[in-house]
Amino acid sequence: MSGSIVIAGLGPGAARLVTPEVSEALSAATDIVGYGPYVARVPDRTGLDKHGSDNREEIDRARHALQLATAGRHVVVVSSGDPGVFAMAAAVFEAIEAGDAAWRELDVQVLPGVTAMTAAAARAGAPLGHDFCAINLSDNLKPWTLVEKRLRLAAEADFVIALYNPVSKARPRQLGQAFDILRPLRAAETPVIFATAVSETNERIDAMPLGRAVPERADMRTLVIVGSSQTRLIARRDRPAFVYTPRSAPAETSR
Amino acid sequence: MSGSIVIAGLGPGAARLVTPEVSEALSAATDIVGYGPYVARVPDRTGLDKHGSDNREEIDRARHALQLATAGRHVVVVSSGDPGVFAMAAAVFEAIEAGDAAWRELDVQVLPGVTAMTAAAARAGAPLGHDFCAINLSDNLKPWTLVEKRLRLAAEADFVIALYNPVSKARPRQLGQAFDILRPLRAAETPVIFATAVSETNERIDAMPLGRAVPERADMRTLVIVGSSQTRLIARRDRPAFVYTPRSAPAETSR
Repeated sequence: MSGSIVIAGLGPGAARLVTPEVSEALSAATDIVGYGPYVARVPDRTGLDKHGSDNREEIDRARHALQLATAGRHVVVVSSGDPGVFAMAAAVFEAIEAGDAAWRELDVQVLPGVTAMTAAAARAGAPLGHDFCAINLSDNLKPWTLVEKRLRLAAEADFVIALYNPVSKARPRQLGQAFDILRPLRAAETPVIFATAVSETNERIDAMPLGRAVPERADMRTLVIVGSSQTRLIARRDRPAFVYTPRSAPAETSR
Repeated sequence: MSGSIVIAGLGPGAARLVTPEVSEALSAATDIVGYGPYVARVPDRTGLDKHGSDNREEIDRARHALQLATAGRHVVVVSSGDPGVFAMAAAVFEAIEAGDAAWRELDVQVLPGVTAMTAAAARAGAPLGHDFCAINLSDNLKPWTLVEKRLRLAAEADFVIALYNPVSKARPRQLGQAFDILRPLRAAETPVIFATAVSETNERIDAMPLGRAVPERADMRTLVIVGSSQTRLIARRDRPAFVYTPRSAPAETSR
């Protein structure tokens, strides 16, 4: 019996943002593997084994999924958002490359999902309407000096900047340091969006100017978007302003 | 009667990649507005008015949608992929900002979708597993010098680079120029992914080294991903290699 492994994106949180393709894969699975809170999103049913594990155990989790598939199981590895963006897909391929040669011949599929930055952007308006970059602020797997370099170059390129994993209990200071790097390089009124628990009942979206952006506003479930020189607000009477980045850029920003 | 406007992402193409949230919005709409081929993806039904228009008419299309909503209609503006990524959401907000004050008070919602780069990445492996940027290669609305500057800075930052709108009939040469800029800055063996018509029956995914990447491989339905210095291939026996970017980056790339 030949097994399979599907690496599926559950989207930001709500079931209404899970693609039919992913729902079908979950229905066909014999095993669900992933970070505990994401595995918990998949409803229990007879014949389904759920293997929730702790955060920061991605490689062990990937190996476990590959072993199950090699043993003939139909495994779905779940990620929040899109599995290819700072999530489980790269971990599974790392495990495949370093592991048993048979793992390369497994049936492996990646199913995309709605990633956190586009879900967050949608709630605020259209801040990603022009060229942008996505930077994982965690320095668990890369040197912080590289993050700093990328922030400076992203500012110079005038990209809108999406910051994934802005803080964690073990890394409380990175977001503040990122703002400190960006403040001399972008106008104080540049909109910064904090989007927390997007699509869930406790969703919270705030926009504030970079000059007064408070890193403590972010938690582990927050995606932060820092606008470019062109990102702007459209004020409304009784509701939060829309935040968006126009499609066009003037010639001057190319200096 | 108060109308509404929803700007919805249809994902890369296949119905299995449309979120339930977007499907519900399409079911509740009185009017669908968008580029003809995207409007055509929405099934006809009694009571639904479909308004397909030509490409490159985004602002007129946005104004039309806003006028319909002001007249009490429930309008869904459809985009391919995610509406906030180089698509209709920014155009609608541009129209709102420049238009009738009443438009600011309309009920406006953006519904995210699976964007082209994550759908393309999923088919190739996990090339977006590390920090990346997204650049719209069209210079219809920004100076080409700005695109060149961004490509150089993105290479210096060692971002994986997703190129949206790499070519069109009116812009046949931009992708070749982009490769020319990147070739001296990245190794010749850097993987480049061409992903065309992702999720559709005529889907085609190719990976080739930057040194031999042929811009003519791209058409208007192609998303191009250029790897970073860390992007790598995992060879397989009878199938295309997986392409992925590891989560970690060595200290040396921060020089």
